[in-house]
Amino acid sequence: MTTAHHAPGETRPGGRTARTRQAVLTAVFEELDEGGFAGLTMEKVAQRSGIHVATLYRRWRCIEGLVCELLTELSSDVPLPDSGTLPEDLRQLARSIADFFAEARMSCLIEAVVSAAARDPQAAAVLRSFFGERLTLAGRMVQRAVDRGELPADTDPEDVMSALGAPFYYRILIARRPVDRHLAESAATAVWAAACAGAYKKRPANDTAPGGG
Amino acid sequence: MTTAHHAPGETRPGGRTARTRQAVLTAVFEELDEGGFAGLTMEKVAQRSGIHVATLYRRWRCIEGLVCELLTELSSDVPLPDSGTLPEDLRQLARSIADFFAEARMSCLIEAVVSAAARDPQAAAVLRSFFGERLTLAGRMVQRAVDRGELPADTDPEDVMSALGAPFYYRILIARRPVDRHLAESAATAVWAAACAGAYKKRPANDTAPGGG
Repeated sequence: MTTAHHAPGETRPGGRTARTRQAVLTAVFEELDEGGFAGLTMEKVAQRSGIHVATLYRRWRCIEGLVCELLTELSSDVPLPDSGTLPEDLRQLARSIADFFAEARMSCLIEAVVSAAARDPQAAAVLRSFFGERLTLAGRMVQRAVDRGELPADTDPEDVMSALGAPFYYRILIARRPVDRHLAESAATAVWAAACAGAYKKRPANDTAPGGG
Repeated sequence: MTTAHHAPGETRPGGRTARTRQAVLTAVFEELDEGGFAGLTMEKVAQRSGIHVATLYRRWRCIEGLVCELLTELSSDVPLPDSGTLPEDLRQLARSIADFFAEARMSCLIEAVVSAAARDPQAAAVLRSFFGERLTLAGRMVQRAVDRGELPADTDPEDVMSALGAPFYYRILIARRPVDRHLAESAATAVWAAACAGAYKKRPANDTAPGGG
């Protein structure tokens, strides 16, 4: 589903830069699995990956930069369905999200990224732009449903997709309990009912004064 | 007549321990306002509050302990409505939550607490039990609606309240944009429609074992 935009140095997917990146991201993922974000340090990643710690600092600056890149890498694996109806698309996507987060280290990763954003403005910017892009992409799924006449024309596609994701992040970050398929079913049913009820209408162009389109 | 099991120094609410606590929590709040969680240290809190840093470490152990206690303190101010109908209760509560988080330092505080939980298992336990208690309390609002026949009898009150809160935490932690009244209206409308559509049905009792009522 993603058309790759390679960063400089990544033009040859099999090159040394790409191999370094892969080794490092794999090491981060394994470290998260074993010790969570609490124990994660650049030094441990260096040791596990066999990449010199100076290289890590030069390329990713801090542990926050590393976890954000790992999130970007992994999330591109969650496919956007196109089944023909929005309720079914929502259900399929919610299940994919649930399966994605069913692995404890994926929840750790989200926690790590949010935590990184709290500590580091650059990580915050990465996080915001990452989710912004995902939302724009996923919004197309909703826009197709609007075009098919399944939802009111003034539905905000990104609000719908935010609402689908919200229960998962709440479960992980706030309730701090495991994500499961029951949550996926609930989220998909809820968002479809809410969208039909007009809960995700676009905000009026002029939020402060009446009138306008 | 209770012979109180107060912690030492807490028998008189206006006593020195209470004053210390208030001075420290006020200092944490002001520090969050000025520098966010990123810049928060025990030393800064000590300096601002005029309380010795050793006292802070002895009583709260770490910055994580402090932000969790501040959250507990502040959140008890969000009232639970009882208007007579659930849609109105949901709307009122959603507005209160939106107003609560409209202050940037409240968003900072949530971010700080989640971040603390990622780094510190004890903070994670505090966070989980704090939200657990809030959910149980708020669930009563939904249970009253079930008792009035507004919602199906098999509605899970805590799932409904989780769903009301989720969009706010998503907005703050993931989308990283300000919370506003538009989000409150959307959340209240969404949760009501979803609850009516059966999105928050109790999980079957036999999810793990059969039987029971």
